[in-house]
Amino acid sequence: MKNIEALQKTLGYKFKSEKLIIEALTHKSHKQPYDNERLEFLGDAVLDLIVGEYLFFKFPKSDEGNLSKIRAALVNEDGFEKLARSINLGEYIYLSNAEENNGGREKASLLSNAFEAVMGAIYLESGLDVVRKIAIELIERNHKEISLDSLFRDFKTTLQELTQARFGETPEYRVIASRGPDHKKEFEVAVIIENKEYARAIGKSKKIAQQEAAETAVKLLNKEI
Amino acid sequence: MKNIEALQKTLGYKFKSEKLIIEALTHKSHKQPYDNERLEFLGDAVLDLIVGEYLFFKFPKSDEGNLSKIRAALVNEDGFEKLARSINLGEYIYLSNAEENNGGREKASLLSNAFEAVMGAIYLESGLDVVRKIAIELIERNHKEISLDSLFRDFKTTLQELTQARFGETPEYRVIASRGPDHKKEFEVAVIIENKEYARAIGKSKKIAQQEAAETAVKLLNKEI
Repeated sequence: MKNIEALQKTLGYKFKSEKLIIEALTHKSHKQPYDNERLEFLGDAVLDLIVGEYLFFKFPKSDEGNLSKIRAALVNEDGFEKLARSINLGEYIYLSNAEENNGGREKASLLSNAFEAVMGAIYLESGLDVVRKIAIELIERNHKEISLDSLFRDFKTTLQELTQARFGETPEYRVIASRGPDHKKEFEVAVIIENKEYARAIGKSKKIAQQEAAETAVKLLNKEI
Repeated sequence: MKNIEALQKTLGYKFKSEKLIIEALTHKSHKQPYDNERLEFLGDAVLDLIVGEYLFFKFPKSDEGNLSKIRAALVNEDGFEKLARSINLGEYIYLSNAEENNGGREKASLLSNAFEAVMGAIYLESGLDVVRKIAIELIERNHKEISLDSLFRDFKTTLQELTQARFGETPEYRVIASRGPDHKKEFEVAVIIENKEYARAIGKSKKIAQQEAAETAVKLLNKEI
């Protein structure tokens, strides 16, 4: 068995069942009668609930739509890859030589799945309260700020960096329309780069619409390369 | 406050916080400073975990893909509408007169959302173990059999295979009648094979009626052999 002392120390948690943690760390490429996919299935639901509940209390005035958006920004492959890396999870994963040589230990999907599986294993042997504490500590340590603004800001920054490098200019955000009564307004925003429209998005605020349009533009520009 | 005695009895659960259960039963059309959408967000994640964990233990040999499929067949609007109806949840929902006159109390989405919200409320005040017990009892009572086959069997496809093999033709579905006001329509459908009517069924949509009629016809044809 791998030396998981360091992992236990980082997590502040001592695994009870050696069999279970080995299963959680076993990628399907490592031919065994078990792998971590079932635990990943469970861990995924555990994390969805933990993060959902955390946001429910953290944002008592936010509606369901915003809670869902913030959760989607935290609970996804990128987010879990980040948490997995923060505990050096890659080191502990069992995988085949082929997968190893193929850079498996650094793959976002593999890291994210193993992270979910480890959380699923902790849930199984120690229950929701214990895994909640561990997961929330990791999330808070790895996200400076948890809010709609901060989690979505990245796309505008990313887009600006991209367009400056490629076109030597910053993107322009144009409000195309605003609709609806004051308490339920919607804004439609377009991103313009070099006089060409790259994307549009509709949001409850200009900021949200800008961020979503920026996200689409980033994806388009990355495809164009 | 509505008389929720009967609801409490059906659920086998006594609500601790009157404020919370009222929130869980309040549709957004009922103008209040609160509605059940945040609790629905929470309840949705609670049910995902409860059902996921239940299937994890019930099917120790099933892989993640099959567990996901079975869960998707249980955890959806139709599934939760069924559970909501089984506890007569519609009776207890607070909604606007307009929504009421529009048949809101019978709407699948409204019933399903309120069911999730009630489960979210029970989770909040009594924790995962209590809500798990209640939810699993309801699910087991309302699904005769929980398996990939039984949840996914498409009777129209089965019937078509049967009739093609036996009669060299495909069954015809004939709408015999549609009844009721728009928001509460019912369809009566007959299955005709070789000019002979084999079965009839009534459903909330043509599709549902067709599936049920097909199921009866399949059973009849299998008996005829």
